[in-house]
Amino acid sequence: MKTPINDIRAAGVTAELSRWIVGLSGTDIPNEVRREGLRTFVNWVGCAVGGAHHETVDRALAAVKPFSGKATSTILGRPERLDALHAALVNGISSHVLDYDDTHLKTIIHPAGPVASALLALAEYQEINGADLLTALVIGVEVECRIGNSVYPAHYDRGWHITGTAGVFGAAAAVGKILELNETQMSWAMGLAASQSSGLREMFGTMTKSFHPGRAAQNGMFAALLAQSNYDSSLQAIEAPRGFANVMSDKQDYNEILGDLGTRWEAALNSYKPFACGIVIHPTIDGCQQIREEIGERARNIKTVELVTHPLVLELTNKHTPKTGLEAKFSVYHAAASALLYGDGAPTAFTDEMANSPEIINLRDRISAVADPDCHEASVTIKITFSDDSILTKHVERAIGSSERPLSDAQIDTKFLVQSGLVVGEEQAKSVLDICWKLESLDNCGQIAQVAATQ
Amino acid sequence: MKTPINDIRAAGVTAELSRWIVGLSGTDIPNEVRREGLRTFVNWVGCAVGGAHHETVDRALAAVKPFSGKATSTILGRPERLDALHAALVNGISSHVLDYDDTHLKTIIHPAGPVASALLALAEYQEINGADLLTALVIGVEVECRIGNSVYPAHYDRGWHITGTAGVFGAAAAVGKILELNETQMSWAMGLAASQSSGLREMFGTMTKSFHPGRAAQNGMFAALLAQSNYDSSLQAIEAPRGFANVMSDKQDYNEILGDLGTRWEAALNSYKPFACGIVIHPTIDGCQQIREEIGERARNIKTVELVTHPLVLELTNKHTPKTGLEAKFSVYHAAASALLYGDGAPTAFTDEMANSPEIINLRDRISAVADPDCHEASVTIKITFSDDSILTKHVERAIGSSERPLSDAQIDTKFLVQSGLVVGEEQAKSVLDICWKLESLDNCGQIAQVAATQ
Repeated sequence: MKTPINDIRAAGVTAELSRWIVGLSGTDIPNEVRREGLRTFVNWVGCAVGGAHHETVDRALAAVKPFSGKATSTILGRPERLDALHAALVNGISSHVLDYDDTHLKTIIHPAGPVASALLALAEYQEINGADLLTALVIGVEVECRIGNSVYPAHYDRGWHITGTAGVFGAAAAVGKILELNETQMSWAMGLAASQSSGLREMFGTMTKSFHPGRAAQNGMFAALLAQSNYDSSLQAIEAPRGFANVMSDKQDYNEILGDLGTRWEAALNSYKPFACGIVIHPTIDGCQQIREEIGERARNIKTVELVTHPLVLELTNKHTPKTGLEAKFSVYHAAASALLYGDGAPTAFTDEMANSPEIINLRDRISAVADPDCHEASVTIKITFSDDSILTKHVERAIGSSERPLSDAQIDTKFLVQSGLVVGEEQAKSVLDICWKLESLDNCGQIAQVAATQ
Repeated sequence: MKTPINDIRAAGVTAELSRWIVGLSGTDIPNEVRREGLRTFVNWVGCAVGGAHHETVDRALAAVKPFSGKATSTILGRPERLDALHAALVNGISSHVLDYDDTHLKTIIHPAGPVASALLALAEYQEINGADLLTALVIGVEVECRIGNSVYPAHYDRGWHITGTAGVFGAAAAVGKILELNETQMSWAMGLAASQSSGLREMFGTMTKSFHPGRAAQNGMFAALLAQSNYDSSLQAIEAPRGFANVMSDKQDYNEILGDLGTRWEAALNSYKPFACGIVIHPTIDGCQQIREEIGERARNIKTVELVTHPLVLELTNKHTPKTGLEAKFSVYHAAASALLYGDGAPTAFTDEMANSPEIINLRDRISAVADPDCHEASVTIKITFSDDSILTKHVERAIGSSERPLSDAQIDTKFLVQSGLVVGEEQAKSVLDICWKLESLDNCGQIAQVAATQ
């Protein structure tokens, strides 16, 4: 009835992965991988602060506050504090709500939301030093991306929002590492994560999309806390015939989970979004921004725009008439229009106001797109026809933010300061950025959250 | 790529169901359905009290307590109080941990755990009168069973623990009804439920199995609370191409959800377990108890036992060497041996001690079972061969607790008093039972939880 297990080691996937997590020490992680982990952390804090004033966060907080436990943990960019579990949820929501966070390009997982949201909330509940937090962060990201790889793309194609479904394992692994779970407890934590793995792609374009990384952070942390209390679970939750991979995917490749553990690092492949929307639109925005720089105000004379894109662009972002900022993130037409008219791909391009701007709508409705199966995910070809029938064509071979054109530290800084400055002001944004880069030297990295709190 | 939507009304399944939930009043529910709802409630309270001292509950509480919010809500049969969300979780766990609760036989959903656990915890957070609670309970059970019907058996066969995956919708509907959500908010609550729908059958035999109804109660309540705060979601979460039914099942029959709404009542079909284990073993226990009554101490002279059962018995309960009480619930061999030797099918038959009893093990290892596809789920044939080679055969046409042989109110009372008396003593058990039957006359049914609390 089920797809047969395809690897001799399948019998012990969960156990072997758990053993690796428990046994790993910070010094086993190469410096360049730790460095990418730090960039992941810095970028995540900027996004969590940057999203903190979104109404999605307001509404989540309104629902959560009456049920919060002891208010140990900061909601970044805000004055509220919640218990660590609920803080993980809300920081996870705010870090993703602008669709501006990070991406493991192989799986389209946004790795930091589930993992960093859990760890920083926990760091205000119990003291964690910065080096340990970074080690746990790298482990969590590694675990969620490897589990994602093992089922991608079949799992994603079926309709699962992989950031939620794989992310919960990452959060459980990261928190379990901090809690010093033993191997059996770590396997139980994986089991409790598997039994909470959820999140549907149907929710894209609604507030429930950013609920997924937040809830994955909260659920993964809870899985680890339960396991710490010896709340038991399956020891084979990932690979069992009725475990995660078989139930939730038509593909199961356990070598993606166990192969080259400790030498191949998925956590080193993380990338950071230059634009505040789904990664698949980024080549289009990049190309349109380049065109904007070339043509300036001639953008007002555009008659039509034709895009040739990767098929996923149309599968995910084919909204022709977005009505809200959230919906606009799923409209390649809106994104292209905004980039051509204003050169904008930041959160300011995806507000309700911009979604309803007559100037944007006017150009948006003259933009068309076709899918080309041979087009690389990080590529696009853009053909502009002006009102005088002259034509301009731009091919983007690899978009900014792709693995070939990663954001520099300076670009991460700029992104951080612009988005978080809008929320907490320039001065506080600088202070937060400064302490984030010092993560590894901190004895108590809960400080970072406190520096990012507002009055 | 996905199974096509099979009903013209599919475009509005979630919306139409939400409209029905919002519009229904208590008087629209026939008396006999309300009566079955009351039996569902009474049986659930008995199970929640009966399971309250299980170590599974101890461990969940240990993990949860440091994070609990304002302690409004009672853990039945215990002195602890937690915030309403966490109380829903823990009461849901305790009500299921003995596998002694209730069953919607068409889907093997255990309906009360997700729904009643949420409602009674909420009733100590905000005042709810008994009639309204019963109305919400019936609605919640109806919603989860209809959604379960729409995807069963393909969904269950794939490996989903349907009590968790469908139960979350029931809890969201029930709590949403109490919160007086409007139609749009109710659809959002269904969306937030869909994005938390989870729970794997791989967890059977571990503490994580009873985590599923508890977490479904908590998650469903949270879905309704978020929707009340206008945290939005998909309006088509059940039927969308990447919604619940298509992603989590190969079968989608939306007529099971919308057909005869308000005239066909799945909530009237609930049944109550006479034995503290999976329903599929019940015919075997029933038959073995009858044999025990006939043969008395000749049970010591049994050489072999051969069972001819429904195939699901072997699929679910084929554990030959259970080591713990929880595992013993998934061993038809253990269950048969206990019933033959002691006439026992109560929680006392499924302890760690009994799982390791030499006398049980000795007989258990001489019991075999074969599956017969023509065997009804509520039937079994038992062939006993004694040491003198004499043979006794017993055919159970329909087991006690099946829809043809439902438990009477008096049998529900006895089950309630025996299991909860072991936890809170005979006198308090009687008080709790008494107030449970008076549910509909109570102005504030949080009282029930308080009567079921211990010092």
